[in-house]
Amino acid sequence: MKKLLFIYLLLIGLFVLYIYNYQAKSSVKRAWNDYELVGNMDETYVMVTFMVGIDYWKRALKGFEDAAEALNVSIEYRGATQYDVHEEITVLEQVIAKNPAGIAISTMDPERLNPVIDKAVEAGIPVVMFDADAPESKAYSFLGTDNYKAGVEAAHKIAELLNKKGEVGVITLPHQLNHQERTQGFQDTIFMEYPEMKVVSIKDGRGDPVLSKEMAETMITENPNLAGIFVTEANGGVGVGQTIMKNNLQDSIKIISFDTDKGTLDMIKDGVISASIAQGTWEMGYWSMQFLFHLQHGIFEQNHKNEPLPRYVDTGVTIVTKENVQSYYPQ
Amino acid sequence: MKKLLFIYLLLIGLFVLYIYNYQAKSSVKRAWNDYELVGNMDETYVMVTFMVGIDYWKRALKGFEDAAEALNVSIEYRGATQYDVHEEITVLEQVIAKNPAGIAISTMDPERLNPVIDKAVEAGIPVVMFDADAPESKAYSFLGTDNYKAGVEAAHKIAELLNKKGEVGVITLPHQLNHQERTQGFQDTIFMEYPEMKVVSIKDGRGDPVLSKEMAETMITENPNLAGIFVTEANGGVGVGQTIMKNNLQDSIKIISFDTDKGTLDMIKDGVISASIAQGTWEMGYWSMQFLFHLQHGIFEQNHKNEPLPRYVDTGVTIVTKENVQSYYPQ
Repeated sequence: MKKLLFIYLLLIGLFVLYIYNYQAKSSVKRAWNDYELVGNMDETYVMVTFMVGIDYWKRALKGFEDAAEALNVSIEYRGATQYDVHEEITVLEQVIAKNPAGIAISTMDPERLNPVIDKAVEAGIPVVMFDADAPESKAYSFLGTDNYKAGVEAAHKIAELLNKKGEVGVITLPHQLNHQERTQGFQDTIFMEYPEMKVVSIKDGRGDPVLSKEMAETMITENPNLAGIFVTEANGGVGVGQTIMKNNLQDSIKIISFDTDKGTLDMIKDGVISASIAQGTWEMGYWSMQFLFHLQHGIFEQNHKNEPLPRYVDTGVTIVTKENVQSYYPQ
Repeated sequence: MKKLLFIYLLLIGLFVLYIYNYQAKSSVKRAWNDYELVGNMDETYVMVTFMVGIDYWKRALKGFEDAAEALNVSIEYRGATQYDVHEEITVLEQVIAKNPAGIAISTMDPERLNPVIDKAVEAGIPVVMFDADAPESKAYSFLGTDNYKAGVEAAHKIAELLNKKGEVGVITLPHQLNHQERTQGFQDTIFMEYPEMKVVSIKDGRGDPVLSKEMAETMITENPNLAGIFVTEANGGVGVGQTIMKNNLQDSIKIISFDTDKGTLDMIKDGVISASIAQGTWEMGYWSMQFLFHLQHGIFEQNHKNEPLPRYVDTGVTIVTKENVQSYYPQ
């Protein structure tokens, strides 16, 4: 009889636990309502880039991963190993064939990926562009830096450093859209907001440190009053920095560079480069993942009704200077 | 004996169910890892605006609500009933006193709310600005329309409608920052990208339909070749539309307006207004809530390390025309 009583008690105890457990579970379910920001690990979202190995993508991929972890979904990272548009198209074709839950693409060509991007969208795969857009494609959105605005920020920063006076130059890649926009934002702002400043020279540094170094030397020789240089990408920035160091011009010429690779950060620490425009690459990856998840789960559809999504989201920039440079080194 | 056997079987059955249940629950927990995008209903996030009753805030509040629902947290909507900065400050003080999980603020004054915004941040309350920024405050981020860029879009649209030729005017609020930016983006783009177009007149419509109507009439009389008008806010747009209708100028003068209130949408449907710039207000609310949640739960902190958050996120615009106007009516 004692044994039977024990079994009864155990039985009742377990039953109570089971009911409690069941209720706890269903209350969580009820609170989430119609849509929940939690997927499942079978959902695979893919990030596609080019020159997959370069440091530049690391922060974007980290953002993509962080969002995937928060949303409980899986990711893959794919892309062209080289700066080769055909390779990127082939990789994208392979990714589409696997019917992933969504694709975030940074394109090396603003037009030539369009047919394959459109094919993905037509097959019902959510696609967003990040960092480099294909504006005429059917991708739902673009998340990246407003390069014109980044140029505007660079102009305000150099004006601040030069007390709104003096001659400045630009070293850029005049044939690439994002660099044209950075240069335009810089030029327009100097022209319209700083009457005592002037852009006296714009040169092609081809994104190459050696060539940019030479261009900076020519620019300095041709413009003896030059007080500042805006370099629209990081490799050139380091080259220009070398010119400044070699000629001991740290005090007379201020450099504003772009991005946050180690060479740039080191030169900011040493006072050779005054400031750099840091893109929100972690943001691009994080919010690309969130956008794809929202598209895949119909969350935008439910709330936007038929209204189109904004085609463009500026993920913003921050300005790196000697004061905050330490926080930009990988931790 | 039979009874005992039955009890044993029931006991084993329940035990198996319990174990199964327990495992299912813990596997969900494991997948979420360190951070999860699910809060609890005790967390209250507050949206603070001014002129709380106007239609304009409805979509933003809907976005804020939708994100709160997805994240399983609570919201409150508070604000000044009038266009009164003292009232907005008082309301914000009351909100802070309740120590909410986060506050999204649209300010009617870019400076005068700063002390109380800073007080909230210093008390450890996450604060983001949306729609109208307080750039010098300690708020973590601003999510809103890049008004300069919205003006650029308006210029491109009017140029497209006029085949890149002709004289255009602007009716705006010359003393308000966001309207100055819209006008500047419009002017700069016409000046720099459309050599056969010219901005011949800029007038103050004070955001009033009657005054804007009069201003449009004067502008048309003074500029007999006028081919287009950009009105930087919705009330004025409707007033200008009335002038166009009264004088039967639908075919000779194109209007680009701003926002998507019913009057504007009706005039687009009737072909009086050619297009309107729609702000991503749902986006502002939705992503403000997400940002506050990420700040409250330390998700940015974990991933951004010491690196600052981008201070600015452009939530984008879309262009409303006769073709897509139907989707902008409240469903």
